[in-house]
Amino acid sequence: MELKEELKKRRNFFNGQLENFLHGGEPEALYNAVRHLPLAGGKRLRPCLAMIACEAVSGDIINVIPLTIALELTHNFTLVHDDIMDKSKLRRNIQTVHTKYGEPTAIIAGDLLFTKSFESIHQIKGDLSTFKNIEFGLIDCVREISEGQQIDMEFEKRNNVTEDEYIDMILKKTAVLFMYAAEAGAILGGGTREQASSLNEYGKNLGLGFQITDDYLDMSSNEKILGKDIGNDIRNGKKTLIAVHCINNVTDKDKKTLDKIFGNINASEEEIKQVYDLFKKTGSVEYAKEKSFEYCNNAKKAIDILHDSDAKQILLKLAEYSIKREK
Amino acid sequence: MELKEELKKRRNFFNGQLENFLHGGEPEALYNAVRHLPLAGGKRLRPCLAMIACEAVSGDIINVIPLTIALELTHNFTLVHDDIMDKSKLRRNIQTVHTKYGEPTAIIAGDLLFTKSFESIHQIKGDLSTFKNIEFGLIDCVREISEGQQIDMEFEKRNNVTEDEYIDMILKKTAVLFMYAAEAGAILGGGTREQASSLNEYGKNLGLGFQITDDYLDMSSNEKILGKDIGNDIRNGKKTLIAVHCINNVTDKDKKTLDKIFGNINASEEEIKQVYDLFKKTGSVEYAKEKSFEYCNNAKKAIDILHDSDAKQILLKLAEYSIKREK
Repeated sequence: MELKEELKKRRNFFNGQLENFLHGGEPEALYNAVRHLPLAGGKRLRPCLAMIACEAVSGDIINVIPLTIALELTHNFTLVHDDIMDKSKLRRNIQTVHTKYGEPTAIIAGDLLFTKSFESIHQIKGDLSTFKNIEFGLIDCVREISEGQQIDMEFEKRNNVTEDEYIDMILKKTAVLFMYAAEAGAILGGGTREQASSLNEYGKNLGLGFQITDDYLDMSSNEKILGKDIGNDIRNGKKTLIAVHCINNVTDKDKKTLDKIFGNINASEEEIKQVYDLFKKTGSVEYAKEKSFEYCNNAKKAIDILHDSDAKQILLKLAEYSIKREK
Repeated sequence: MELKEELKKRRNFFNGQLENFLHGGEPEALYNAVRHLPLAGGKRLRPCLAMIACEAVSGDIINVIPLTIALELTHNFTLVHDDIMDKSKLRRNIQTVHTKYGEPTAIIAGDLLFTKSFESIHQIKGDLSTFKNIEFGLIDCVREISEGQQIDMEFEKRNNVTEDEYIDMILKKTAVLFMYAAEAGAILGGGTREQASSLNEYGKNLGLGFQITDDYLDMSSNEKILGKDIGNDIRNGKKTLIAVHCINNVTDKDKKTLDKIFGNINASEEEIKQVYDLFKKTGSVEYAKEKSFEYCNNAKKAIDILHDSDAKQILLKLAEYSIKREK
């Protein structure tokens, strides 16, 4: 069983569904802006996770299609608005929505993506009380993602962020949607309460490991691989686990260099390199790597109770992939 | 029966509910931004409309509290995002959210207000199928409001907007939420399908009349009364009914003056006055006034079928007020 192939199969199925769902709409410019990011590809990790969780409890993935679309659109809605806030120019190797369509249309496009997530959730079949609970879970996710985004921004102005605070922030900003994807996928697949809980715990650890790896990759790879402006995180003083660990473990002398460059929007490429070297010197890059491995192992342990199946094997491999990937 | 008193009674009741609902939340800066506009007062027309519609079908307003909060928060969410797009500095005589808290936090605050509308709708008691329909109505409103906002922006770049196009735009941007408020209020109040439909038609005409009056007031009153930057609409080339009528009825000679000033972001106070004089010369201000009267009369006619009650009397007076108000 090849993880890449298994993900690709589900991604292709999902992409077809998403294209249908996002077809048409007036005014055209607005709906083009709405489609811009969701139809630009991407890993579709959240939809895949919901599908595989559904399969892992022997469910039929037909039941999770509305959920998978809602997950991806919610994720994309937050990305469109985040890119405006961060003034990012590139995402998935193409122009960000606001760069291409202007800020006003991008703000509305984000709002509409949010709206369309709920439109999709409304297509969930079956008993209404399950629908209502599933939907409330999504509402709760968006609340937490919004809070997480604000906390992340506030961290940029603080140099005393603790590791616990950092973990709490990425839990809200990233992991809750993974937790929700896996748990809701299991519920709609007809899984037991216990199965759904274990998949929620899997999603939590996968999400945390994934985010730490994401921050790590942003620090280490080049623009071509990631499709993002490199060094942005350092220039914005972004508190990744690496940065937080470094700040809390750097020598007094090096702290001065760090304070001078970290969060300096005009830092040169050379200075970015200097900070990156400090990250390595304090063992912070290594530390983040270890942490992401820890979360990966926790994710795998969380689904011990699931009976063996192809889907379970995919989940185990996915946990490994999420920290070993290069983009 | 004094309309102002009747509205005030319901507004005060609503304000208490809203304050409770918006209490607390972390991070504090974000929730302060969330509360900033909703707790700054306002007419609370949509919540009042839902309450009165509920009463007009002999319903208990306890049943519409979650709806009223959702209506006001949805309205406020669109205002917070609109103000960012329009770069408006004042709203309800206080700083706009992005002026006070910065654009990034304002974008998130808007998203969170949207989220909290749905949180509120989820508190609707009673049968789940009604809840689901009511909620889907709100989702549909937000879609139409978003489309209307985009169309409104696109109009600013066009000088051939017809009256029909204008009406369709404000139907989406403003009237749908009035239609929904009145109809959903009636449904949750236990009204018949016929009563709910007539209240939907009432809301449509009230909303259209209200929006045309709003545009008219923006053209004629001073900053102190409206709490908005005056002349903004002219400087932005905003297609109000007055502007659309004027463009389509101006003489060739005056058209040149109009084209020069209308949509010129740097137009002087004197030039603004010149355009306003053209609006009067073409009879466009008068025309808008007549149109708003027409919608007011249609609103009143729409609720002919409702049995007589205090609530019905309030609705009749509200239709008149909506076009006679000074702010």
